[in-house]
This record gives sequence, structure tokens and C-alpha cells, in this order.
Amino acid sequence: MDMAMDESLSPLAQPGSSDQQQIASASILLQIVMLGLAFVLGHVLRRHKIYYINEASASLLLGLFVGFVANVSNTEAHFRQWFNFHEEFFLLFLLPPIIFESGFSLQPKPFFSNFGAICIFAILGTFITSIVTGVLVYLGGIFFLMYRLPFHESIMYGALISATDPVSVLAIFQELGTDVNLYALVFGESVLNDAVAISLYRTLLAVKNHPLETHGFMSAIWSFLEIFVGSLSSGVGVALICALLFKYSGLAVHGLQNLECCLVVLFPYFSYMLAEGLGLSGIVAILFCGILMKHYTFPNLSEGAQAFTSGFFQLISSLAETFVFIYMGMDIAIKSHSWSHVGFIFFSIVFIVMARAANVFPCARLVNMLRPASRQIPMNHQKALWFSGLRGAMAFALALQAVHDLPNNHGEIIFTATTAIVVLTVLVIGGSTSTMLEKLDVVGEANGNSMILDGDDEEMEGLTTNSDDGHDDNGFDNGHMDPLTQKFQELRKRYC
Amino acid sequence: MDMAMDESLSPLAQPGSSDQQQIASASILLQIVMLGLAFVLGHVLRRHKIYYINEASASLLLGLFVGFVANVSNTEAHFRQWFNFHEEFFLLFLLPPIIFESGFSLQPKPFFSNFGAICIFAILGTFITSIVTGVLVYLGGIFFLMYRLPFHESIMYGALISATDPVSVLAIFQELGTDVNLYALVFGESVLNDAVAISLYRTLLAVKNHPLETHGFMSAIWSFLEIFVGSLSSGVGVALICALLFKYSGLAVHGLQNLECCLVVLFPYFSYMLAEGLGLSGIVAILFCGILMKHYTFPNLSEGAQAFTSGFFQLISSLAETFVFIYMGMDIAIKSHSWSHVGFIFFSIVFIVMARAANVFPCARLVNMLRPASRQIPMNHQKALWFSGLRGAMAFALALQAVHDLPNNHGEIIFTATTAIVVLTVLVIGGSTSTMLEKLDVVGEANGNSMILDGDDEEMEGLTTNSDDGHDDNGFDNGHMDPLTQKFQELRKRYC
Repeated sequence: MDMAMDESLSPLAQPGSSDQQQIASASILLQIVMLGLAFVLGHVLRRHKIYYINEASASLLLGLFVGFVANVSNTEAHFRQWFNFHEEFFLLFLLPPIIFESGFSLQPKPFFSNFGAICIFAILGTFITSIVTGVLVYLGGIFFLMYRLPFHESIMYGALISATDPVSVLAIFQELGTDVNLYALVFGESVLNDAVAISLYRTLLAVKNHPLETHGFMSAIWSFLEIFVGSLSSGVGVALICALLFKYSGLAVHGLQNLECCLVVLFPYFSYMLAEGLGLSGIVAILFCGILMKHYTFPNLSEGAQAFTSGFFQLISSLAETFVFIYMGMDIAIKSHSWSHVGFIFFSIVFIVMARAANVFPCARLVNMLRPASRQIPMNHQKALWFSGLRGAMAFALALQAVHDLPNNHGEIIFTATTAIVVLTVLVIGGSTSTMLEKLDVVGEANGNSMILDGDDEEMEGLTTNSDDGHDDNGFDNGHMDPLTQKFQELRKRYC
Repeated sequence: MDMAMDESLSPLAQPGSSDQQQIASASILLQIVMLGLAFVLGHVLRRHKIYYINEASASLLLGLFVGFVANVSNTEAHFRQWFNFHEEFFLLFLLPPIIFESGFSLQPKPFFSNFGAICIFAILGTFITSIVTGVLVYLGGIFFLMYRLPFHESIMYGALISATDPVSVLAIFQELGTDVNLYALVFGESVLNDAVAISLYRTLLAVKNHPLETHGFMSAIWSFLEIFVGSLSSGVGVALICALLFKYSGLAVHGLQNLECCLVVLFPYFSYMLAEGLGLSGIVAILFCGILMKHYTFPNLSEGAQAFTSGFFQLISSLAETFVFIYMGMDIAIKSHSWSHVGFIFFSIVFIVMARAANVFPCARLVNMLRPASRQIPMNHQKALWFSGLRGAMAFALALQAVHDLPNNHGEIIFTATTAIVVLTVLVIGGSTSTMLEKLDVVGEANGNSMILDGDDEEMEGLTTNSDDGHDDNGFDNGHMDPLTQKFQELRKRYC
């Protein structure tokens, strides 16, 4: 804020474009300061083991506070404009690194040994959540419990609000050391679930805009599959091309590391933009590109480039993730909301809690029916999974899109409700995760699968790999030893 | 281009914002492809020792080609809009990493042992160039040689066209292995010179917009100093705060590398935005922030963070640099230019060549008067310095600003002339540097100061340090051994 005031003191404040650039600089300056503060705050909270406010909540609160101050003080419109959440900026520049890093840092063993369950929760489960939420919202409207949305828009709302965001929950899972299989389920579900929710939302929007081209339910399913499979293929395709390039180009020699890194960094973004440019989902593409690049491209890089790219993707994604929460907080505080629909918000929350239960428990039952007795998902894990469905940036971004997509102020209502749900779930669920995990008795389970508490970011990463959990391997090729696996094995020797 | 066509084939092309986002994605996709291509092209050219087309020229030509195709084919306006050079984007996001890396990768020994000479060339010299060019352009207008600009605007044009850009020249200098002192002079001059030119342009603009506040020449000098010294101080201040933070915060421990790197990466950007927000020059700030951070912050980082941040800044700056040339090429091909002023362009080129001579030779004479006989700048070095004054992205960005800043279409004329000068100098000077260096006999000089040709990017960097060149040290503290110096010493053992 001070920066905005200081401008008038500057001896050479120029009118026109220079002036606007100065204001832009002041806003960016403020955002950098907040970003730095959020990192330091997150570190302090983690160090003092304060789990009821985590990094994501701290960033969100910081953003809310600054946005609130900008709102009550008389700052210039151009200054405030920089605080608005531009969904184009979010979708094109902030989201890709976050999603890529989720795929890239994924430890394949627990992920692939739980792949079937994850797919059931993420694909079937998200379908269930979306439809149950949508139908409940529609019925709520009919029975005068809440503002009445048309059926189609209710389902769209159901789809967008089903995108769960695990950022803060997972951070605490890592910190407290829970079972690797539970971690893999929560992580895998939340990552894939975003992809499903966004595909579903886009499909419904396409069906809404081109009703003539579609012939009912089957055609919607078909176009969903088209988006999902098409995006998946473009991500996988780009990753394989990248792997082949680095295998045969001979770039992994000393002295070409800069060229190597420049190219590696461009590929994920290429897959994202390729899918988006084709009208598919970039998120799905970049996610699978990340998973495959870790497996097929990473081993073909030189040692220096391996160390560098891991660090690079982690850094960019941390910055983007923290910034998303700050950005969201500022936007929420600055935008005008239609708070007249408190009932809509209240019943939305009740319905998404119910819908998540309708996803998790039946799907878990289905998974348990298909699994051998030794690998059943226990009830406390099911409850933890149900609990960890907090809503974050993806739901927020989709709601922002809905403001443009839906007529009659319905988009605004959905946006306000989503905003409220995001803030509440991030603060409340994020804040109570540690208590909940302890109550459910999934913290540091003595079954040999638990993650070890150390408070060390880097070491944590290595720990999500568990190479002797007694489960079958699903034939996943793990012939090469990546640095994280090596690290994990060192750690195992130290701790076990 | 294919992407733009493919959109219509996509089964789910949506109207409105989604559609726009799809077009944005397709344009970004194309830009990523070009970026990748430019890197590969640059690598191939370097590998085959083809010096008449360097990386910068290749990127510029690539951009020109794609822009030209977009222009003649019937691509959508929104698609083309993504190819325009937005000077805000350039100044806020592309330029900072490039300038920071120039400061950060600066090898202090030759830079500081030539500091006096560099300052004379960069500060006094740029003043001379600006005023000589401005006066000649004004006189050219009076004598009907070219379009007549008012005196004030002529000097502004002189200032903006005086910003030299050494990218491609320096790449060849490194490649061919010239004298370290010549390299330091060219590099130091071109880096500081940007800062001086931009400060001068801003001062002139401020004087133009607030004529009442200024009282003649002395006041303009005063506000120039204000901008220059203020910016320098904010850069130096931020770097020192950063150094203190890392010295005393105890972040350089194992496991906090991600936090450490996130914070280090934010500081340079902070100094840039601080200066810009205060109405000063961010470039000057971030340049000095880079020089000081390398010296005072870098040694306080953990080993992993040191390796990572060097790589990170180099990567980001390579990407930004290559992208700037592509971006510039596309914009030049797409924008409409007022080609009716060919005379203006022709005489501008003649005048800047004369003005650069009026900078280099008298300033070199001054330097030689002040230096002992053993350290004189020889005539072939002076000629090489005169030759290497090609104009690049900085002049282009300032010219783009001039379009907004100047009335009566004068901005457009200046913009077109600058564009033509940039393209010609990058292609012609950039392409003929190796021939010129050979003719001037400064390639691989057998005086023990020469840089060794190896074709290896990384090793090249180490070589700009020369610790026993027989010159006095200027008392610069070099107590710590940074990795590059170590590398250099290894290389010396190998080659000498």
C-alpha cells in the first residue's frame, strides 16, 4: 500500500504509460513481498509444528488481508486491477507448473500399486460427486431451500465444485507421516480428479452451447472420453518424443547442460499448450507428461541436468502454489460478492459433504470387493479420504470461468458460493487435518508403511517411495535408480 | 500456423472465453516451438562454427519469418495479437532476468580492473553518443536530409538509439577467444550503457512533460543523477539486505534448499520492482543487485543452492534472451511501418556510426591519458569497441514507448527507424563480427590474456576470469573462491 502512496512523492512520476508501468511495478512489488512473507511464515509454522494454520491458509489469509486493506483504503483502480485473479493467467502460467510437478514428483510404486483404486475414486467417484451435488442443488432449488438453478447449470456447478485440491492436506500428511497407501490414494485421487472435473465441466459447457450436436447422455459420455483420452494421449506422446530426443540426440554430455535444461523445461509446457490448442484439457496432458517424463526422459539426462531440473520444477511449482493462494485471497477480498445467497452457500456445503460421502464409501466398498483381503482399504482410511476433500484453486478458476459462461447472474452466485467453500475448506479442513488424522489413528501407523517424521522437506519426498511394502509390483519398470529412490534407501538404512 | 487451422477441426471448439484461451494456447504453443527451434539452431550453428549467422540472428530471422507468414496468411486478429511485442511484458518479465544474469555472471576481476574505463565509455560516452546523434538528426532535419524532428525529440531519439546490445557480439567474442580486457570493456560498457540510456530517456521525457519544474541543463543533469544514483542504491541496498539475511538466518542447512532458493530468486525481482515502483530505473537496480548478490549473497548460500541458483538464472536469462529476439522479429513483421521515411533510416544509420566513433575514440584517448603506458587501450581494441555497438531489444523497447510518448506520428517514425537499425545491426554486425575480429587481429592474441577456444559453453564462462594478467587488482576482495574461479583454475592447469 505504501508504494501507491510513495508514487506521488517520486520526483519524476510521469503520466501515461510510464505511470501505469510504475503502478504495475508497485503491485508486483507488493506481491513479491507477500510471496516472500508467505514462504517465511510457512517455514516458521512448520518449524514450530503449528498445524492449525498451514502454509496454504497463511498465504490465503495474507492475500485476504492485503486485498481487504486495498479495498477499504482508497487505492487506484489500476493498482487494484493487478490484484484481480485473471483466470487466463492462472490457467496458462500458474497451473501448468503445479500440475506438472504433481506428476513429476509422483513416486510410482505406491501410485501404480493403487492405480485401480485411484481411478475408481477419481473417475467414477468424481462422476458420482458431480451428479449427486448437482441433483441435490437442483432439488434444493425446487424445494425452496436455496436459489434455484436450471438442471444443466446445477450439474455444471456440481462438476466444478468437485475439483478437490489437496495442497494443504498433503503437506500435513507428509509432516505427520501417514501410511503410504493412504497418501497415494489421497494424492492420486486429487490430482486425477482435477483432470476429470475440468473435462466434465468442459463437456457440459460444450453440450450446453451446442445442444443440436449432442444426442443425450451417451454423447456427453463420448465427448468426455474424447477430451480425456485425447489429452492423455497428447501428454504421453510429448513425453515419449522428449524421451527419445534425449536418448538419441547426445545432449547429455558435459558442457551442453544449459541447452539440455532449456529444452527439458519447454517440453511440459509444450504438451499443455498442445492439448489446450486442440481444445482438449492441458491439465490432463501435462499431468501425464510429468509422470512419463520422470520415467522415460529423466534417466536420459546428464547428472547435472537431473539435479537441476528436479530443483527447477519444484521451485517453480512452490512459487506458483503459494502465489495462487495469495492471489485467490486478494481477489476474494476485492471482488464484489452477492452475499444475499447465504442459504445457497450453506446448503452447497451440506450437499458437497454428502456427495463426497456418496463418492468415497461406495467406491471404497467397490475397491475392497475387487481387492484381496490383505489389501482392503480400512475404515479409518476411508474416513480420512472423505475428510480430505477440500476445494482449492481449480474449483475457484472454474467458477471464475462460470461467471462468463452462465447467464442471468447464475455464474456470480456460483462464484460466490465456490469462493466461500474454498476459504472455509482450506481454513477449516486444512487447519483440522492433524487433529483428524490423530483421531482416526492413521498417524505413524506401526505397519511398516508409515512415513517417518523429520521436518525435512527434501527427505520427505524420498519417503513416499516404499519398495518393500509387501504388495505386488504391477510389473512397473523401476530398473533405473533415480536419486530420490537412492536417497530413500539411504534414509531407510538410517531410520529402520 | 497449423494450430490456428486445427482449431476448426477440434470437436469441442467453444465460443467466448474458452475459445480465446484456445487461441492463446495455440499462439504460445507456436512460440514454444520457435524457442526450442532457436535453441537447437543456435547449437547447430555453434557446433559447425558458422559465425555469420549467430543465435540472436537466427532467432530474429525465425520470428520475422513466422510473423511474415502470419501477416500474409489470414490468421485471426486475436491470434496475431499474441505475437505483438508488449513493452510492459518485455520490461516487467523478460528484461529483468537478462540484466540480472549480466550482473550475476560478471567476472569481477577484469570488470573492476577496467571499471574506470567502462564508466567513462558507458556514462560519458553514452552522453556523447546521445547528444551527437540527437544534434545530427536535428541538423539533418533542418537541412532537409531527413524528416524534421523538434530538438527535444531528436535528443530523445539519440538517447534511445544509444542503448547498445552486445548479445550476439559477446557470444562470438567468447567463442573466438579475445583478450579479456577487451571483452570486459565491451561487456561492461554495453551493460551499463543500457542503464544510462534508459535513465537519459526517462529524464528527457520527464523534462518534456514537466517543463515548468526544470530550469535548464543543470536540472536535467540533476534529475539524471537522481534516477541513476537512486536506482543504483536500491539495487545495492536490496543485495546487501539479502546477503545479511542469508548470513544470519541459518537457512543454508540441508533440507531447506527449496525455501532458500525461493527467497534468493525473489530478491533480484524485488530490487527491480522497488526501483520501478519508486519511478527509478529497475534495470540499473537489478544490474547492481546482480553484481553484489554474486559477491555477498552467493557465498552465504548452501552448496546445493549455489549450484542451483547459478543454473537457474542462466536458464531463465537464456530463455528470455532468445525469446526477445523471436518476439522482436514477429512484432517487426506484423506491425505496420511508415516506410516512407527511408531517408530518415539511412541518415540515422550514418549518424549513429559517426556518433559511436565520437564516443569511442575520444573516450579511449581520455582513458589512455589517465592510464599508465602498460595498460593503454590499443587501436585495434578501440576499433573493435566501435564496431560492437549493435542495437537490440533495449532500443526497441524504448522506441515502442516513444510511440506513446511522442505526438504527431513522430513516435512511429522513430519506431520504424529503430526497428530497421536493430535488424540491420543484429544481422550485419552480428554476422560480420568474427571476420572483423580476425581483421583487427584481436582473436586469440598471444599476450597471455586471451580466452581459449573450446566450443564449450560452461567452460567459456570460467574463462573470463583471469587472475594473473599482470594488472593491478584495484583492491577488490576476491577472498572466497567461487565455483567458476575454481573451474577456471582447473582449466588453466589443463591448457597452460
